[in-house]
Amino acid sequence: MSKPMAEGFLRNRWYVAAWDSEVGRSPLGRTLCGEPIVLYRRLDGSIVALRDACPHRLAPLSKGVVEGDNLRCGYHGMMFDGAGRCVEIPSQERTPENFAVAAVYPVIERYRFVWVWIGAPEAADPALLPDLWPCEREGWTFDGGVYHLKADYRLMIDNLMDLSHETYVHAGSIGQPEITGSPTEVTTEGDEVFVSRWMRGIDAPPFWRNALKRPGPVDRWQVCRFIPPSAVMIDVGVAVADTGAPEGDRSQGVNGYVIDLMTPESDRTTWYFWGMARNFDIHDRGFTDRFKAQQGGVFNEDLAILEAQQRSIDANPDLKLRNFSIDAGGVRSRAVIDRLLRAQAAAE
Amino acid sequence: MSKPMAEGFLRNRWYVAAWDSEVGRSPLGRTLCGEPIVLYRRLDGSIVALRDACPHRLAPLSKGVVEGDNLRCGYHGMMFDGAGRCVEIPSQERTPENFAVAAVYPVIERYRFVWVWIGAPEAADPALLPDLWPCEREGWTFDGGVYHLKADYRLMIDNLMDLSHETYVHAGSIGQPEITGSPTEVTTEGDEVFVSRWMRGIDAPPFWRNALKRPGPVDRWQVCRFIPPSAVMIDVGVAVADTGAPEGDRSQGVNGYVIDLMTPESDRTTWYFWGMARNFDIHDRGFTDRFKAQQGGVFNEDLAILEAQQRSIDANPDLKLRNFSIDAGGVRSRAVIDRLLRAQAAAE
Amino acid sequence: MSKPMAEGFLRNRWYVAAWDSEVGRSPLGRTLCGEPIVLYRRLDGSIVALRDACPHRLAPLSKGVVEGDNLRCGYHGMMFDGAGRCVEIPSQERTPENFAVAAVYPVIERYRFVWVWIGAPEAADPALLPDLWPCEREGWTFDGGVYHLKADYRLMIDNLMDLSHETYVHAGSIGQPEITGSPTEVTTEGDEVFVSRWMRGIDAPPFWRNALKRPGPVDRWQVCRFIPPSAVMIDVGVAVADTGAPEGDRSQGVNGYVIDLMTPESDRTTWYFWGMARNFDIHDRGFTDRFKAQQGGVFNEDLAILEAQQRSIDANPDLKLRNFSIDAGGVRSRAVIDRLLRAQAAAE
Repeated sequence: MSKPMAEGFLRNRWYVAAWDSEVGRSPLGRTLCGEPIVLYRRLDGSIVALRDACPHRLAPLSKGVVEGDNLRCGYHGMMFDGAGRCVEIPSQERTPENFAVAAVYPVIERYRFVWVWIGAPEAADPALLPDLWPCEREGWTFDGGVYHLKADYRLMIDNLMDLSHETYVHAGSIGQPEITGSPTEVTTEGDEVFVSRWMRGIDAPPFWRNALKRPGPVDRWQVCRFIPPSAVMIDVGVAVADTGAPEGDRSQGVNGYVIDLMTPESDRTTWYFWGMARNFDIHDRGFTDRFKAQQGGVFNEDLAILEAQQRSIDANPDLKLRNFSIDAGGVRSRAVIDRLLRAQAAAE
Repeated sequence: MSKPMAEGFLRNRWYVAAWDSEVGRSPLGRTLCGEPIVLYRRLDGSIVALRDACPHRLAPLSKGVVEGDNLRCGYHGMMFDGAGRCVEIPSQERTPENFAVAAVYPVIERYRFVWVWIGAPEAADPALLPDLWPCEREGWTFDGGVYHLKADYRLMIDNLMDLSHETYVHAGSIGQPEITGSPTEVTTEGDEVFVSRWMRGIDAPPFWRNALKRPGPVDRWQVCRFIPPSAVMIDVGVAVADTGAPEGDRSQGVNGYVIDLMTPESDRTTWYFWGMARNFDIHDRGFTDRFKAQQGGVFNEDLAILEAQQRSIDANPDLKLRNFSIDAGGVRSRAVIDRLLRAQAAAE
Repeated sequence: MSKPMAEGFLRNRWYVAAWDSEVGRSPLGRTLCGEPIVLYRRLDGSIVALRDACPHRLAPLSKGVVEGDNLRCGYHGMMFDGAGRCVEIPSQERTPENFAVAAVYPVIERYRFVWVWIGAPEAADPALLPDLWPCEREGWTFDGGVYHLKADYRLMIDNLMDLSHETYVHAGSIGQPEITGSPTEVTTEGDEVFVSRWMRGIDAPPFWRNALKRPGPVDRWQVCRFIPPSAVMIDVGVAVADTGAPEGDRSQGVNGYVIDLMTPESDRTTWYFWGMARNFDIHDRGFTDRFKAQQGGVFNEDLAILEAQQRSIDANPDLKLRNFSIDAGGVRSRAVIDRLLRAQAAAE
C-alpha cells in the first residue's frame, strides 16, 4: 500500500468545522482541507462561512467584528454580508458590483456540529450528511470535544477502524486483552466499511457493568463504521447474555456510539471532533463530565502514537506501510477514499 | 496588482540599520536586505559596518570583541580594521594581502539613526538620504523605538499611506471616525508620493487639544509622504481654525512628524524604526515617555493585523490584493518601488 | 575549499550511538547519519540496534516496550526479536516469513560507548573501531558526557584539530595565550592526521600543576589526532622539564586523553560524545565530577560559536571558508574525509 500522504482531499463533501458551541458572535477562523474559513452566527443564529480573507488586502476576516448579520474587516473596516457581498467600503460611497469574499461555503448545523461544504457550492446536498442519529434521538445524550492532531487524517481512520490497538496504546487506561483476542468480521456496504466484534458471554468490564446495572455474563459488541470522507462511528455496548443482542434485540442492554469526525486541516494536520452518544444514565451530567475527562487522557495516548507515527513515516521515506488482518478495516476504508479520489480526479 | 512578494530589494540606497544608541563598543549584528551586517563604533565614535562573517571560517564577527578601532573575531582571534582589512592573524606573522571582510558598508549617522548603504559602495551618495529635518531642527525634539515585524515591508508602507485604517485597527486607542470621513488628496512629485487630509474647523481630539493649549475649533492635517526606498514621514498637527494653516501659516498651531523607516530584513520580515518629532512641549520628557509607551500599544495593534495579513496572503495563494480609493497612496508608492526595481534590473 | 555541506556520510564505519549507560531496558531512539535507530539491552546485557520503525505501520519502536529479549511495538503490539524478526502478531496466529524490521545494525560495546555500524552489515569489522586504549587501560579512568550540536560535524572536527581557538572562544575559562604562540607540526599517517604542539620548559598552568603535584618548569604537550570517520583524540599532559617526555619517556609526567566522537545526526546536526581519560588522581571521583562540570561550561562556549558559524555559513552563501596555517589539521582531516567519500561514491 502506498504511503498515507494526501494527494488531495475529497471534495463535494461535508466536513465538520466546529462544535455548535464554538461558533457565535465572535468570528472563528479555522482551516479546513487547506482552505482558510471564517465562521460566525447571524442574529437569528444561522451560521455564515466565508473564505477567511478580506478581498481587499487579504487580512483575515476572523480578526474582524460581527455587526448585525454582517462581518466587518478589522483592517480597513470593509463590511460583508452573509453571502460574502461587500455592503460598505468606508471612505467611499459606491461599492463596486461583484466585490465579494472569494468563497461562500454552504453550512448545515446538525448533530451539534457545524458542517461546511468543501467543493462546488451548487452541488451542496444535505442528503450527503452522514446519519448520526444517536446524536439527536430522544432518550439519548451526546457530548464531546475537539482535538488538534499533527498527522494525516487517514492515520486516525486506521486507528479507529482497528480497536486492537487499545490493548497496547491504552494499556494503562481502557485497553483489555480480550479485545485483541476476539475475532472480527469486516464488510463493505457501498462506500461504507464495517468492522464488527462480538464477545459473547463474557464478564462485563467495570465501565459497562456500571452502565448496565445488572449482574451476570454479557454479550458485548464493538462495530466500527467508516463513512466517507472521514467519519468513523463506533457502536458499542453490552446486553445481558443470550437475550438476543447479536440478533438485534438490544432491549436488555445499554448502548453508546463513539462519534469520530476527522477534518483535514492540511496533509499533515487534522481537526479531530470526538463525542459519545449513549442511551443510559442520560441525565447524569457528572457521568458525562467524567467520561469526557477520561477520554481526554485516552486521546492524548492516541495523539502521542499517531504523531510519532507521522514523524516516523516522514523520517523513513524508504519504508512502506504493511497490512495484516487487523488492518482490514483501515485498508478497505482507504480503498474507498482512493477510489473516490480517482473518480474525483477523473471528473476534473 | 500583483502580490506583495519581494522580487528583490532596491539597491544603492540608504537603509536604517539602528538607532544611534543601539551601536556602541559591543558589536551589533543585524541583517538588512538579506545581508548580515555587524556594526560598532571606533574610539572616536565613528561607526563601522562590515559583512557579519569572518572571512576565515565565516563565524559572525558580531560574536567578537572590539579592540581599539578594530574588531577581533571570537573564534580564532583574527582582527580586522574598520576598512575590513585583516590586521592580525594569531599564530602567524604574515597577513596575506587582500585578506579582508567580504563587504564594507558606507555608513552615515544622521537624524539619530545609523544609515547603511546597500549597494555599490562607490555609489554611496549622502544626498540620497531622505530629508528628515524635524528630527534635528532647533525647537523640535525627536525620539522613538524599533520593532521587528514578520511581514513584507511594503505591507507597512500600505498601512502608513492610508490612515483610514486607524478607525478600525486602533478603535480602542487613537482611531477616530472623522478621519475615515475626510477626503484625501493624493499627489506624486518625482519619486515621492503624498496623501493629504485636511479637517477644517473641527473640535480637536484630546491629544491635540492638550498640545495646542488653546480653546476653539481647529484645522487639523495629516500629510503622509512616501520617500523611496521605504520611508514614510507623516506631517500631523492642528492650528486655530481659519488662521491660514492650510495655506502654509502654521504659526497658530502645533506640529509633529511621525517618522517611519522600514528596513527589509528578508522578504517576509522587517526592521521598523519609528519616531515622533514635535515642536511643542519639547522639554517635557514625561510627555515623550508617555507617548512612546502609548505608541507601543498602537504599534502592537498594527503588528497583529499586518502579520495576520502576511500569513493570510501566504495561505491564500489564489487571491490577489485589490485597490480602492483609500489605497491610492500605497498603490502609487508601490508603483514607484516597482518602477525603480525595473530600472535596477535593466541596469544589471 | 568548498563549504562544509555534507554530500553524504561515510558508510561502512562504526559510529557512537550512545554512552553505555544510556542504553538499558527502555528503548532509546536516536538518529545516526540520517537513520532512525532504536537501541535496547537484552536480559544478558547485550545490545540490539534496529531501524526505529515498526515494519507494520512505521510507528517508532522506541515508543514500545522491551519484553525479555524482544521489543514490542507500542501501537499494535507486534513483537520483534533482536534480529529484527517478527515473533508475534497479536490477533493472528501465523507470522509471515520475512516479516522483519527494515534494518538490523551490528553493535559493539567498547570503551564505554555503544558503537553502531552504518553501512552493509556483512561488512562490519571490529578491527575498524578506533583504538581508544586510554578509555580502558588499567591505571587510567575515563568519563564524559554527550551534547547535541546544531552544526555540521565537520565544523567540530575543524574546531578540535586547531586548539588555537581556545585563546579566544575560551578566554574566560581554559584559554591561554601561550597556546596560540607555540608552533605546531602537522603530519598525516595513512587516514589519520596529527597536530602536535610542544611547549618546553614552561610554567605549568594551575590545572596541570595540581595534577603533577611537583614544582618547577614543565614540558607540556597537545597532540590532536583525527581518526576517520569522525573521531578526534587529543593527547595532553605535562612532565618535569628535560626528563625526556618529547622523546617518549613520560614517566615523570601526567597524561590525559580528550576523546571526541562526533556522530552526524543530519547534515546540520551532530551528536557529540566527549570524555576525558587520565592517569592521575584516578580515584578522586570529585576531580572527575568537577572536571565534567567545567567541561560543560567550556563546551557551551564551543557550541555557541559553532552554531553561530553554521548559521552564518547558511546566511552567506556567496562566501567560502579560507584556510591558514592554523587550519592545517582540519584541512587535512577534511581531505581524508573527502577522499574516502569519493572512493565510496566510486564503489557505489
